[in-house]
Amino acid sequence: MKISVIPTAQQAQGADFSGKTAVVIDVLRATSVITTALVNGACEVIPVKTVEEAQSVYAQCDVDKTLRGGERNALKIAGFDMGNSPLEYTEDKVSGKTVILTTTNGTVAMNNVKGAEGVVLACFRNAEAVSDYIFRLPQCDSPAPDLVGLSHYGSRDVAIVCAGTEGRFSLDDGLCAGMLIASLGQKTEVETDDLGCLLSRFYSQNKDCLCEALSGCFHLKRLVSLGFGDDVRFCLETNRVAKVPVFDGGRIVVR
Amino acid sequence: MKISVIPTAQQAQGADFSGKTAVVIDVLRATSVITTALVNGACEVIPVKTVEEAQSVYAQCDVDKTLRGGERNALKIAGFDMGNSPLEYTEDKVSGKTVILTTTNGTVAMNNVKGAEGVVLACFRNAEAVSDYIFRLPQCDSPAPDLVGLSHYGSRDVAIVCAGTEGRFSLDDGLCAGMLIASLGQKTEVETDDLGCLLSRFYSQNKDCLCEALSGCFHLKRLVSLGFGDDVRFCLETNRVAKVPVFDGGRIVVR
Repeated sequence: MKISVIPTAQQAQGADFSGKTAVVIDVLRATSVITTALVNGACEVIPVKTVEEAQSVYAQCDVDKTLRGGERNALKIAGFDMGNSPLEYTEDKVSGKTVILTTTNGTVAMNNVKGAEGVVLACFRNAEAVSDYIFRLPQCDSPAPDLVGLSHYGSRDVAIVCAGTEGRFSLDDGLCAGMLIASLGQKTEVETDDLGCLLSRFYSQNKDCLCEALSGCFHLKRLVSLGFGDDVRFCLETNRVAKVPVFDGGRIVVR
Repeated sequence: MKISVIPTAQQAQGADFSGKTAVVIDVLRATSVITTALVNGACEVIPVKTVEEAQSVYAQCDVDKTLRGGERNALKIAGFDMGNSPLEYTEDKVSGKTVILTTTNGTVAMNNVKGAEGVVLACFRNAEAVSDYIFRLPQCDSPAPDLVGLSHYGSRDVAIVCAGTEGRFSLDDGLCAGMLIASLGQKTEVETDDLGCLLSRFYSQNKDCLCEALSGCFHLKRLVSLGFGDDVRFCLETNRVAKVPVFDGGRIVVR
């Protein structure tokens, strides 16, 4: 299995995803939010790049069954139902609902992936589930028996897109990418690029002290300073859920 | 001291270097070659982006005192005096000479840095010397006594440009960046970005086994497979020389 790592959402634009499954990671907080919303019963999440796009999509939806969520400068957008805290996306709020989400980095990263065989979303909370999902995807010559016919949901070569923070690499995303690569490396032979190699080794050397490994992380420190410490702790919990969000280019559902 | 890390030569283009000293790193092999050439008595190195530019500059030089060096696809360029192996740049060949150098990544990175207060070149062989040099650069309000008036050679805020390999991050450059940041962090308070934080920690956790830490490195493996294993070993030796190559936008000399 070949795994490449793209360090920012911006660098995903124009990248060659043909023949690959793209894994988008925005630990703090978009992919943690989306995973949580879907685990708590949201029907689907529609990720859009701009606030205007969110309002436009919302105008076409059944407003009783639709919520608008997201952030600008880490804070809830005026008039929206929820911000970008996974702790807001509780079962009583999101169950049975469509969530339209726009964030500064994560939803941009998802929408910058073009031409991939499939797009899945990962965070620390579902990393092992994503690893299992990718490992079980069919290869050209040997599809897993229960996945025959589903090859349009992915291929076993992978491009991991770390969303980053406003155009810069963010270590929280990178460490999660490292966790995913290390996990896949325990299941099969993995060939990765230098960034993937670095992140996988750094994860393996620091997996028992993730918070310490991330202590210098710019975006994490910013969220804590804004009062989102509980969000950060929640997002750094590993392997709490077994759901894999899949993005079909329009909406995200659980597979 | 603020230190940012730019992961590839390409991303240096258009980056904001104002008020910063740029440190360009291409461990395998351009900055190792240049450092070695200058240590062995070359008067200056002129880094150019293309073979055509190298020939054009050469045509204007005293050919008895000028050498052309560099590589394409890691191999010596037809008609040039030397390739891109630091072991070729011996005292008897380069002493008293101008070297015109063109390489795929390193000389491109140097020429992509625009607007910096100063540009210095680092590799594992001179990393501690570069760290000392940067630490001793004057700050606005407290120039080191022997560096007063030399502020145009640098500022103490730093942007490290890892040359990378054909547009991709290369771990050999990154590990050297980590060594430099870790060294500066022992001399003064350092504030770095997430990539700098990752590289500095990864270096500190692996400084006693650099070869092992780099064992997955794509460019290193390629050079070894092409028969350049001796070059790789030479380039991974740390702190063997105390010279700091400084690039003024036209030529590189030792300070």
